[in-house]
Amino acid sequence: MTFREDGYAAVDWAARYLERVGDLPVLAQVEPGELSSQLPASPPERAEPFADVLRDLDELIVPALTNWQHPRFFAYFAVTSSEPGILAELLAATLNQVGFLWRTSPASTELELRVADWVRQLLGLPDGWHGHIEDTASTSTLAALIAARQVTGRDVVVCSEHAHSSVDKAARMLGMELRKVAADDELRMRVDDDLRLDDVAVVVPTVGTTSFASVDPVRELAERAHAAGAWVHVDAAYAGSAWICEEERWSQDGVELADSLVVNPHKWLLIPMDCSLLWTSRPDDFRQAFSLVTEYLRTSEDVYSLSEYGPALGRRFRSLKLWAVLRCYGREGLQQVVREHIRLAELFARWVDADLDWELGAPRRFSLVVFRRNGSDEENEALLERVNATGELFISHTRLNGRYLLRLAIGSERTTEADVRRAWDVLRREASRA
Amino acid sequence: MTFREDGYAAVDWAARYLERVGDLPVLAQVEPGELSSQLPASPPERAEPFADVLRDLDELIVPALTNWQHPRFFAYFAVTSSEPGILAELLAATLNQVGFLWRTSPASTELELRVADWVRQLLGLPDGWHGHIEDTASTSTLAALIAARQVTGRDVVVCSEHAHSSVDKAARMLGMELRKVAADDELRMRVDDDLRLDDVAVVVPTVGTTSFASVDPVRELAERAHAAGAWVHVDAAYAGSAWICEEERWSQDGVELADSLVVNPHKWLLIPMDCSLLWTSRPDDFRQAFSLVTEYLRTSEDVYSLSEYGPALGRRFRSLKLWAVLRCYGREGLQQVVREHIRLAELFARWVDADLDWELGAPRRFSLVVFRRNGSDEENEALLERVNATGELFISHTRLNGRYLLRLAIGSERTTEADVRRAWDVLRREASRA
Repeated sequence: MTFREDGYAAVDWAARYLERVGDLPVLAQVEPGELSSQLPASPPERAEPFADVLRDLDELIVPALTNWQHPRFFAYFAVTSSEPGILAELLAATLNQVGFLWRTSPASTELELRVADWVRQLLGLPDGWHGHIEDTASTSTLAALIAARQVTGRDVVVCSEHAHSSVDKAARMLGMELRKVAADDELRMRVDDDLRLDDVAVVVPTVGTTSFASVDPVRELAERAHAAGAWVHVDAAYAGSAWICEEERWSQDGVELADSLVVNPHKWLLIPMDCSLLWTSRPDDFRQAFSLVTEYLRTSEDVYSLSEYGPALGRRFRSLKLWAVLRCYGREGLQQVVREHIRLAELFARWVDADLDWELGAPRRFSLVVFRRNGSDEENEALLERVNATGELFISHTRLNGRYLLRLAIGSERTTEADVRRAWDVLRREASRA
Repeated sequence: MTFREDGYAAVDWAARYLERVGDLPVLAQVEPGELSSQLPASPPERAEPFADVLRDLDELIVPALTNWQHPRFFAYFAVTSSEPGILAELLAATLNQVGFLWRTSPASTELELRVADWVRQLLGLPDGWHGHIEDTASTSTLAALIAARQVTGRDVVVCSEHAHSSVDKAARMLGMELRKVAADDELRMRVDDDLRLDDVAVVVPTVGTTSFASVDPVRELAERAHAAGAWVHVDAAYAGSAWICEEERWSQDGVELADSLVVNPHKWLLIPMDCSLLWTSRPDDFRQAFSLVTEYLRTSEDVYSLSEYGPALGRRFRSLKLWAVLRCYGREGLQQVVREHIRLAELFARWVDADLDWELGAPRRFSLVVFRRNGSDEENEALLERVNATGELFISHTRLNGRYLLRLAIGSERTTEADVRRAWDVLRREASRA
């Protein structure tokens, strides 16, 4: 293998993919098992050239991709893997740092602390918070629940009915009891006088819920939680990135009271999967929950390791992509992307609101629009499947009080006003075909 | 940013790094805080060209790297990020699949199942086992303990005193009780008649312990565990890869009885960090422990998602690098690498054994040699620090019954006999300087 030659070919492949991704179907147009049936059942015996891998990437893999980099990917929370982030992943894999101790990678350890602090500053979070990178919000929230249980000695988790499934899953994995609190008309966790938190380990308010991007009353919840001796873990995995724009910091009210906070730069700060930032105002409690130094991990330096702040021991060099993207965009560049996404979402929301055949299902928040066409749930569900089957755009759904709702989320750097306009055209066209 | 131009520059940078990595110091020759002090305290405001990132990579980051790709990296378990694996990470970041449902990435879901099965075949594991990828063995073991607790309704974990810290950490995170069993003279978990497993959720035998690469009596433990209704999770994170060579399968005896098994291809199958394979013979139990399908995750296809088999929801496209490496090496190529590492370790062990000033601290197992120089623990510890400070090689240590031991582990594709010879020369040179 000649690394340079194969590497140029890989870069060319990547460049071509990114240039033409807008012409591919957004949602994979394959049946379950279709790719599997084309892959050999037995492993290769002898070496093949890398060029064969690139050929099969085109012939086998690409048709089975749902194209997350497509400008009309509007499902779940749309994301972008930006160019400096992509190249930084190449570099990180080249360096192959395994950062379980400071000495095994001073670069990874110190760069991670620094870029986590850069993002803290960019988002306007309190001085002195300790930040590190986990893979996904599932792990960040799991880690926060573990720390909270250890500190409080309690076993109950409280969140809104609209909190992300990762809170349910973490509680279940840990054998903690989950109490879900009903939301109010604005889809915010209800804080009633009879909300008892005395036996609660951790309250998890969400800023930007998955279904509606609604914002829980963090300040009120944090005050109530702390008065009752509970930990506060704020889940701002999606919407926290919006705080890079000062006009979106209304949604940050009370977050400064959090004991821990998760924001996923792989969601809305142009970082490739995976990169979840976990800050805490109580680093000593985190370290106490996770530090475990066996003999073979003991070193002569009196410095800590980031593996002492979370579940994993081996940690890859994720800070490199955060560093590259922050530098190649700067605060200005990232603000511009987030602002444009919110502007486009607001535009789409206005079209929906102005059309008598359609309605908003929830107030537009950040870059998410929740909406439906007049008609039954079944009609809306059929519409979603029909629209996604065109390959022209990909949207997802949720339900509110049993009612089926469509979700259009903007998060691709490649999305233009023309793409949002086309999404609206396709939706109306397919609706009229019913 | 012109992606092609910057991409070629990144490939050139990576190629140059890999060409010259053997001339760099293995262990970073910086003081704690040295890199931090050179990094700006505030985040960048405006966009910079990617070329500036590459420049700072050379000037700031490289001096703070411990070079895991160095041919004389012999610490912990040495690893290799191979060239097809590196390029596959570039491609995975380009495609940016987020595989939490089949429909969000049919390619990632189906390729992952297939390559996990390829590795199962390469390692000679039982037909029908279900395999998927987690980030590290910490997560794989955590997942196994969660499944075991759910299935058995019990709370106790049993492992050898030489089990990896990830078992301790997982038990602590989950609030499970850990019972460590003493090892025999061959550093294998002792299976006495009075070993009671009636209240045990899971027994974790290790094939290839971190300190000594010793092999627990898996068959005996599995039979005892199953008779008592306990789950068996085998940790073969390092040594499992050796099963690709049939002559190493003596260490696989009884593994076919496991309920779950972890092997890390990022350790010894030339895959960049991170890639941990977790197989189970009880996929339904795993799914029951981890599946959580909320409304916004419901789809019309009747297919499962790999996020239903482990802690994380969002999953990156890790199978791509496994696919690329398996194809570009083939069974033959990977066998050759593993065999050569074991041959070199055996060679080094013979040199140690033949020299009256040195002795083996444990039998050579796989590619790990545990040894010491005659003299006190303090002298050996000082020797290790002196040797690592030369930058010529990097070794690590452990203790057995309080006694300080040196560890030399071979795992870099770049390591030649000349490198092992040089390590031996440097060790003797530095020892004679004491």
